[in-house]
Amino acid sequence: VEVTEPLVYLNGRTIPASEAHLPLYDAGLVQGATVSEMARTFRHRPFRLGDHLDRLFRSLRYARLDMGLSMDDLLAISGDLVAHNARLLPEGGDLGIIQFVTAGEVRTYAGMMNRPPRTTPTVCVHTFPLMFELYARKMQAGAHLVTPSIRHLPPACGDPHMKCRSRMHFYLADREAQLVDPEASALLLDLDGHVTETNTANFLMVERGVLVSPRLVNILPGISRATVLDLAGKLGIPFEERDLSVLDVLNADEAFTTSTPYCLMPVTKINGVWIGDGRPGPMYRRLLSAWSQEVGMDIGQQLVQASFAGQQPLQ
Amino acid sequence: VEVTEPLVYLNGRTIPASEAHLPLYDAGLVQGATVSEMARTFRHRPFRLGDHLDRLFRSLRYARLDMGLSMDDLLAISGDLVAHNARLLPEGGDLGIIQFVTAGEVRTYAGMMNRPPRTTPTVCVHTFPLMFELYARKMQAGAHLVTPSIRHLPPACGDPHMKCRSRMHFYLADREAQLVDPEASALLLDLDGHVTETNTANFLMVERGVLVSPRLVNILPGISRATVLDLAGKLGIPFEERDLSVLDVLNADEAFTTSTPYCLMPVTKINGVWIGDGRPGPMYRRLLSAWSQEVGMDIGQQLVQASFAGQQPLQ
Amino acid sequence: VEVTEPLVYLNGRTIPASEAHLPLYDAGLVQGATVSEMARTFRHRPFRLGDHLDRLFRSLRYARLDMGLSMDDLLAISGDLVAHNARLLPEGGDLGIIQFVTAGEVRTYAGMMNRPPRTTPTVCVHTFPLMFELYARKMQAGAHLVTPSIRHLPPACGDPHMKCRSRMHFYLADREAQLVDPEASALLLDLDGHVTETNTANFLMVERGVLVSPRLVNILPGISRATVLDLAGKLGIPFEERDLSVLDVLNADEAFTTSTPYCLMPVTKINGVWIGDGRPGPMYRRLLSAWSQEVGMDIGQQLVQASFAGQQPLQ
Amino acid sequence: VEVTEPLVYLNGRTIPASEAHLPLYDAGLVQGATVSEMARTFRHRPFRLGDHLDRLFRSLRYARLDMGLSMDDLLAISGDLVAHNARLLPEGGDLGIIQFVTAGEVRTYAGMMNRPPRTTPTVCVHTFPLMFELYARKMQAGAHLVTPSIRHLPPACGDPHMKCRSRMHFYLADREAQLVDPEASALLLDLDGHVTETNTANFLMVERGVLVSPRLVNILPGISRATVLDLAGKLGIPFEERDLSVLDVLNADEAFTTSTPYCLMPVTKINGVWIGDGRPGPMYRRLLSAWSQEVGMDIGQQLVQASFAGQQPLQ
Amino acid sequence: VEVTEPLVYLNGRTIPASEAHLPLYDAGLVQGATVSEMARTFRHRPFRLGDHLDRLFRSLRYARLDMGLSMDDLLAISGDLVAHNARLLPEGGDLGIIQFVTAGEVRTYAGMMNRPPRTTPTVCVHTFPLMFELYARKMQAGAHLVTPSIRHLPPACGDPHMKCRSRMHFYLADREAQLVDPEASALLLDLDGHVTETNTANFLMVERGVLVSPRLVNILPGISRATVLDLAGKLGIPFEERDLSVLDVLNADEAFTTSTPYCLMPVTKINGVWIGDGRPGPMYRRLLSAWSQEVGMDIGQQLVQASFAGQQPLQ
Amino acid sequence: VEVTEPLVYLNGRTIPASEAHLPLYDAGLVQGATVSEMARTFRHRPFRLGDHLDRLFRSLRYARLDMGLSMDDLLAISGDLVAHNARLLPEGGDLGIIQFVTAGEVRTYAGMMNRPPRTTPTVCVHTFPLMFELYARKMQAGAHLVTPSIRHLPPACGDPHMKCRSRMHFYLADREAQLVDPEASALLLDLDGHVTETNTANFLMVERGVLVSPRLVNILPGISRATVLDLAGKLGIPFEERDLSVLDVLNADEAFTTSTPYCLMPVTKINGVWIGDGRPGPMYRRLLSAWSQEVGMDIGQQLVQASFAGQQPLQ
Repeated sequence: VEVTEPLVYLNGRTIPASEAHLPLYDAGLVQGATVSEMARTFRHRPFRLGDHLDRLFRSLRYARLDMGLSMDDLLAISGDLVAHNARLLPEGGDLGIIQFVTAGEVRTYAGMMNRPPRTTPTVCVHTFPLMFELYARKMQAGAHLVTPSIRHLPPACGDPHMKCRSRMHFYLADREAQLVDPEASALLLDLDGHVTETNTANFLMVERGVLVSPRLVNILPGISRATVLDLAGKLGIPFEERDLSVLDVLNADEAFTTSTPYCLMPVTKINGVWIGDGRPGPMYRRLLSAWSQEVGMDIGQQLVQASFAGQQPLQ
Repeated sequence: VEVTEPLVYLNGRTIPASEAHLPLYDAGLVQGATVSEMARTFRHRPFRLGDHLDRLFRSLRYARLDMGLSMDDLLAISGDLVAHNARLLPEGGDLGIIQFVTAGEVRTYAGMMNRPPRTTPTVCVHTFPLMFELYARKMQAGAHLVTPSIRHLPPACGDPHMKCRSRMHFYLADREAQLVDPEASALLLDLDGHVTETNTANFLMVERGVLVSPRLVNILPGISRATVLDLAGKLGIPFEERDLSVLDVLNADEAFTTSTPYCLMPVTKINGVWIGDGRPGPMYRRLLSAWSQEVGMDIGQQLVQASFAGQQPLQ
Repeated sequence: VEVTEPLVYLNGRTIPASEAHLPLYDAGLVQGATVSEMARTFRHRPFRLGDHLDRLFRSLRYARLDMGLSMDDLLAISGDLVAHNARLLPEGGDLGIIQFVTAGEVRTYAGMMNRPPRTTPTVCVHTFPLMFELYARKMQAGAHLVTPSIRHLPPACGDPHMKCRSRMHFYLADREAQLVDPEASALLLDLDGHVTETNTANFLMVERGVLVSPRLVNILPGISRATVLDLAGKLGIPFEERDLSVLDVLNADEAFTTSTPYCLMPVTKINGVWIGDGRPGPMYRRLLSAWSQEVGMDIGQQLVQASFAGQQPLQ
Repeated sequence: VEVTEPLVYLNGRTIPASEAHLPLYDAGLVQGATVSEMARTFRHRPFRLGDHLDRLFRSLRYARLDMGLSMDDLLAISGDLVAHNARLLPEGGDLGIIQFVTAGEVRTYAGMMNRPPRTTPTVCVHTFPLMFELYARKMQAGAHLVTPSIRHLPPACGDPHMKCRSRMHFYLADREAQLVDPEASALLLDLDGHVTETNTANFLMVERGVLVSPRLVNILPGISRATVLDLAGKLGIPFEERDLSVLDVLNADEAFTTSTPYCLMPVTKINGVWIGDGRPGPMYRRLLSAWSQEVGMDIGQQLVQASFAGQQPLQ
Repeated sequence: VEVTEPLVYLNGRTIPASEAHLPLYDAGLVQGATVSEMARTFRHRPFRLGDHLDRLFRSLRYARLDMGLSMDDLLAISGDLVAHNARLLPEGGDLGIIQFVTAGEVRTYAGMMNRPPRTTPTVCVHTFPLMFELYARKMQAGAHLVTPSIRHLPPACGDPHMKCRSRMHFYLADREAQLVDPEASALLLDLDGHVTETNTANFLMVERGVLVSPRLVNILPGISRATVLDLAGKLGIPFEERDLSVLDVLNADEAFTTSTPYCLMPVTKINGVWIGDGRPGPMYRRLLSAWSQEVGMDIGQQLVQASFAGQQPLQ
Repeated sequence: VEVTEPLVYLNGRTIPASEAHLPLYDAGLVQGATVSEMARTFRHRPFRLGDHLDRLFRSLRYARLDMGLSMDDLLAISGDLVAHNARLLPEGGDLGIIQFVTAGEVRTYAGMMNRPPRTTPTVCVHTFPLMFELYARKMQAGAHLVTPSIRHLPPACGDPHMKCRSRMHFYLADREAQLVDPEASALLLDLDGHVTETNTANFLMVERGVLVSPRLVNILPGISRATVLDLAGKLGIPFEERDLSVLDVLNADEAFTTSTPYCLMPVTKINGVWIGDGRPGPMYRRLLSAWSQEVGMDIGQQLVQASFAGQQPLQ
């Protein structure tokens, strides 16, 4: 049968996206008790999917969730979905690939549907077309960040190395940042006042030719971030990890965020202060170019072209 | 038309429960960016629903979410659902009533379904039959609590007065508590080491005839808790709010949790130490009896009867 | 001799304002090591000057600064300055009265002027005409506050009960708040995330008819605040002091700041959210009216009239 | 005209020191809202002035103060002042060079002088003869430090990398330290209990041949400290930066403070405990000698000679 | 048999003091894992012994130590020891009564004595003659306190309501305080910078006629402190409990410490600053007199007389 | 004379163990004010005793305790005791060697024995046969750790680099851990939620071939830990020190504790999660084997043999 919509893996079954539903009493919705991953394809080939799944298993072990699938199972499932769903992409498109595991159905509300609740975790793998039009303008002009009053969660309340979906504090922080600048995202400080990360991305900056990152213990160990560090290593760019103060960040030569959908984005304004000369800088271009070379396509160009030609902005 | 399944209100429409779905890219599932409430009925009449909705509006204002409905709208919607859905209850049953509002559909993944994302918050009201069998045994023998190493979120990371569904830290805490005792729930400490609340309930204790609560600033201002304080006031039971130390809690004469589904539950063991004589105490019985009188039915008896007779345990 | 400019008391001498200078190496300028007070007159009579000076002596004792003057000395000096300087006021004007004591001249730089440094604290009393035009519009339309990422100093770094002039953190906080709204002032949170005070004022709010203040231990014990509490006591308005969460503040029925120059100012917007109905409320009017009665003049009217008639805005 | 007193740059004008005044309502005096730098000359030549000014501009960017002068402007102004003022020095003397920028005149009090307040930042450059007699004895016998109960400001309250003049906590800390020992300065701990810096200097210690510094994120990035690290690098002395515990400090082989006026000072007693053998050690002598070589003069000898011969102690 | 030395209860046996030994590997010595109490007699009658033992049992429950004795057992044992040992007191003397329970013998070292280790807690009750000469001078002239840099343990590290003997931080704090003043004791601050208690006593102060205490959650709930509060209640002295800032303490009208051996001691100097007029004040005399009345003897006189007449100072 | 029991050094005298007693009012027992060390022998030869004594002197300097003995004195005393006491060991046995110094006799209780209190610190050196049977099973099957809710003391309350015996928080933590698993020890988190150490051992883990330790500033600088790092250096095993998150620890390839009596112990379960494959791993074996080679005997074999053959388990 020809399926003209994307397929989704959900709790052991592969089904059309339009049939992929969670009950209203899934712990993912009721408690945000969800561990997740997001990878992407370049030219329809998954990028560092093994690294993403390795992090997924690390998160699951910490959360004591047993998803009942092996790494090989997940690779196969993800591969099958990509193979099918990529065919539905527009020209020049690529996929995001999501795996998530929730704590299953919450017994408290489960009488709602008049059937016994599933007692194992909810496991889902799905894809989505990367929405390049969301990033294109910022890739060219630079993103804006603001440090809000809301702080990042301390490790005492849950390990920042777990990628999970209880992100209300990120949501609140972004709303606060947007009071300053509707285009801005929040760059959260930790309880001590040091810079950490954004809702969806790691933060990196350049200081006298050195690539600098906040201390890893306070942030998600991003795969995109790891890719940037690998590229920097190959390019001979020195790297340093330390507690980052706001003064140092405002005085950076360059700054960027790294995240799966867009890889590397220049940051040109923080707290209303222009970073460097207020434009994407040479280190940014060098790193993005090296990344493009690694994946055999021009990452920035894909974003811009897809955005302004192949796809229609949704909003 | 005769509908034989519960109705759900979702984004402006009232639909059968089996058709009430959120897309996989709703912010409630992707970020836990959900503000929520849960009330219940006694004999099919909502209890303090206005108080619950008032708290909902307070949470929404803090999260800057505009649900597009007034208090009156919500009262009407909730009332209609209760009227319909209560008819499907077994004898002696009652309903939980849930309102939740998420930050809407997340644009990043929204290309998945090939339609533009809804740009307003997701609003849902639904009910579920209260699962008395989950509480019956603990109502009689007492619940067990354990203080885990995971701490409650500090106010700096989001106001504890907001009822939201980013609750991974609660989930982690419960899993830790269950290492000690599979029956136990977590009683979370704050960063300073003071007692706060559990995943789903407020904590109260009795010390030389005085009802004592952790400081309100660190916990959800529970409606059940407020009900207990009102009842205590009427019964002339003195009340005190203060930072509670673990030593004081272990030496309490009685302890309980309060929560919407079961109202008031005795706690008989904390960190492996029996509280008082290890059995539900006189203050517990007095308060629950006063509450029963207020709502015109025996709350404890409903739980036990429904649990052992009218319903089948699901697990 | 007729002096046509204000007089200033400086280190034992009373001199014309134009001759009142501190050297560039005074500790007040070099270290912000300054304890200070500000009172005001109503109809040219100092208001609660004794309370202000009492707080000054408390601050000095804490800072171990010996100003070499008694309470009586200071009352006399302040009284003399007011008597003289008030004559220079425009119609309807009133004076601010400042006392400050610095740690004296800093030996390190003192060679600059080729004379031995004074080794005792610098003591200064001066007045200034209250600039009503700075407050008039906000008194009518309401002030705006924003909670910035910069936190208030914790007691471990210096007692918040001392009124001192090392206020860079307040300055930084205000600049941050003004990114959101050029009209806004910063409402600083403490390290735990609770609301404290603004650069120049205490914060109070109204919740179901109760006047509520942040815990005194975290804020300056303002004399204007004390006046409001006294008035509230006389009017039978209940008062409560507690750790204030941001959610509670955003949901207040009314909010205000209290400060010497303008007494009581309505706050109508916090973090972009309208407080109450977004206009000065009844409790505000009631308290300001009681205060006006106490001092025998209409405080609000003075502000508005002086602002729009008697004085020229300076900026 | 022959000017026989030092010149000062103030808000665009170069004037004799005796005419250089700030009004009593300058933000530098009212709020300690001042960013500043201090460099020095060796044999009348400024030392690393560019590094100092670079740090000044970093601080200004963080504080969002626009001084309206470029780096070149400041170098020129500073150079002119040094050229003129050095001629007034006694034999063997050298200059301290100060740049400071305040937030300008505070509108609240500005009516005092009956003229509109300047609305731009206050900018001042001045010099002063280095007071070697303040340091000479300690350079020979060693300084004493005490860890007071007052803590250093955490980054959450303002970046420690900004050199600013809101230093009341330093003042309080020094007064506390002097309760133990009138000769002592405070060595402040951070909120966690780790060693940071003193009011006017960075702290360094020697442990088994390694030069050790507190973590940079908690302290001012001192130019003198950077000079010591450069010298250590040239001399092959290993260097380490880490959180320093009090126990480690008390057991150091040597300890010193670094600061612009005296460069490097041995610390021989901390909290009443002798460091090493209680005398300036070999690493101290080695580093000071290397520094002396770099600037072409004997730094220690200048201090001692100037102190006991060329200048009169002022106190 | 006539025993001419005090008796001691140790692990079930009553033995002469000279035979009462713990092995070197008792957990009390190896880990400070000891819960303890100290009461005293007035005219050879134990005072509030029941309250002390009640607190002991609370501490034991928290530490999960089972001493194998009931309240009645302990009352009897303590009574017997007092009856016997009081006969050995000098004229005018009184006894301290100590109960302590350690975690028993530490298995790791227990091979030392070639016998299997006792596996139950070590339980000891003993008395000692109160050493009035240690307190007499301070009772008349006032004690001195100093706030050291060492902080009191936070509740997160063990409940301050437990009376235990792991007191190294108190020891370190006292040594630090004695750097300032050999007569001084440490008045420890908590991590936030608020005043808590001393090594051996609770702290109280008087402010405008009100007796003020630090918040109970941060300090030991002293029996002497409770006695003072009871007496204050009877005398109509208002009482308040709150976070106490150092500024408020330095500006107190009076201050005292309360502790079992001496009951109530005036504090006349804190951090080198005289409290009130630097002499024991009227509230002190009033409270001590009420206490004396309650126990039927002049507490202060006993101290002074015993000290200067009946006993020889030991040091 | 032939002594058939171990000798103990106590306050200047060498006496049979059965005569080595501390009075009940020694500060070691009353306050836990004790600094201590524990070394061991391999084949009756002390191992790195100099390093242990060096750390002892560092601790004493921090605690300001003067034991009145030099390093040479202590080496000689310890050597003599080992020489004598080792003769009493069973075949294959070895000694633990303990030095401890307390703050001496507490004056408050010292009247108890009717003799003036010793006013100098209590100094004791003793040995004990290593109880291999306590460790043998865990050396083979792996130890279990649990992170309890009780936190490790922060440096602000006393330096973690001091080895002292105020360890109630460790005792409480272990009791909490044993609620989860009677075999488990506590792995304490710091206030921020990072992993530190256990009651009696340092913690190390292996991550992709790298040996990883928590940051030294938060833990005791263990001599066994230093030995492991030395061995790792010789074996070319890379080493890293950083803040360790719980997620990283649960995902370690291997984990161990290091401590004087048993040297290196595999950890196979943490918080109920198996580490690696749940068995002692290759890095463990490699390091223990290198250590065995260094001391000329098979450390693991000694433990197992002595445990199951030469000695009788005591419990």
